[in-house]
Amino acid sequence: MKALAEIQVIPIGVGVSVRKEVTRAHELIEASGLEVQLHAYGTNVEGDLDEILALIRKLHETLHAEGVPRLATAVKIGTRTDKTPTLAGKAL
Amino acid sequence: MKALAEIQVIPIGVGVSVRKEVTRAHELIEASGLEVQLHAYGTNVEGDLDEILALIRKLHETLHAEGVPRLATAVKIGTRTDKTPTLAGKAL
Amino acid sequence: MKALAEIQVIPIGVGVSVRKEVTRAHELIEASGLEVQLHAYGTNVEGDLDEILALIRKLHETLHAEGVPRLATAVKIGTRTDKTPTLAGKAL
Amino acid sequence: MKALAEIQVIPIGVGVSVRKEVTRAHELIEASGLEVQLHAYGTNVEGDLDEILALIRKLHETLHAEGVPRLATAVKIGTRTDKTPTLAGKAL
Repeated sequence: MKALAEIQVIPIGVGVSVRKEVTRAHELIEASGLEVQLHAYGTNVEGDLDEILALIRKLHETLHAEGVPRLATAVKIGTRTDKTPTLAGKAL
Repeated sequence: MKALAEIQVIPIGVGVSVRKEVTRAHELIEASGLEVQLHAYGTNVEGDLDEILALIRKLHETLHAEGVPRLATAVKIGTRTDKTPTLAGKAL
Repeated sequence: MKALAEIQVIPIGVGVSVRKEVTRAHELIEASGLEVQLHAYGTNVEGDLDEILALIRKLHETLHAEGVPRLATAVKIGTRTDKTPTLAGKAL
Repeated sequence: MKALAEIQVIPIGVGVSVRKEVTRAHELIEASGLEVQLHAYGTNVEGDLDEILALIRKLHETLHAEGVPRLATAVKIGTRTDKTPTLAGKAL
């Protein structure tokens, strides 16, 4: 099933600046092969829902393995049956 | 990996009242076998991250199959490595 | 305008445990006089939209004054014109 | 207090397509005078927290006055005391 999503990773317990961890999360999202759009409050992605969910798992797994003790991730997922959702189609 | 999550399903295109679809989503979450806590802005769950992600997929798949044309789902996911997260442990 | 909302405050830069700050946020929400329901992923409130927005401001102001260096707050707000929204009415 | 925020307005009860209402919301956000960045999952804004909160109120008020029966708004708010937050500064 085709889906759009916004993924925002909030690392907790790494200090006030979270830039390093957020940059790493974005690298992993970029490497997923999904269509991506980075913005100040997360990364929007377009692709297969299963791949998006697998990516979320990978983000938690990888960032914890690399030393981040706690993660709060906020995800918005959009699917529809009347037409194929695309990030471009959501542009105003 | 053990995780906590909040899942909120917003059905779009079914009218102003979304009670029927939200009730159905909650039934599916209850049926997942995860520890669940229903509240006015979603359902909190505790369990294996893979099972939580599979549940999210099932919610989209099932509700679309049952006629909901569009879904906007908001998910918050929490994981940590310093201790095992539980819904009970997050209670104040 | 009557509204429902979910308020989740995520303190950043205070360490892996955020319990003290989250408890303090909930105290301030309780003290607002709004109808409140605490759960593992935030506090749901019911009341006048202006009072809810003023409360959000107060949370940021107070927690920063008390030493929290960074706050990420996630808020969901619901309003409707077909009937008066209540937390009780959203219960399934 | 200077703040960053992401504002996503989800109109409910206007049908499967919500483009008209989301476009209108973005117009109102643009007209606020805040620094704004539109993306597929909302609009990011930078400015005074009070002005951002007043804008959220105006969005609900205006869209309801223009006929939208129900609104679910998701807002993320970020403030920090160690430095002045900017959308540009959050760019990776």
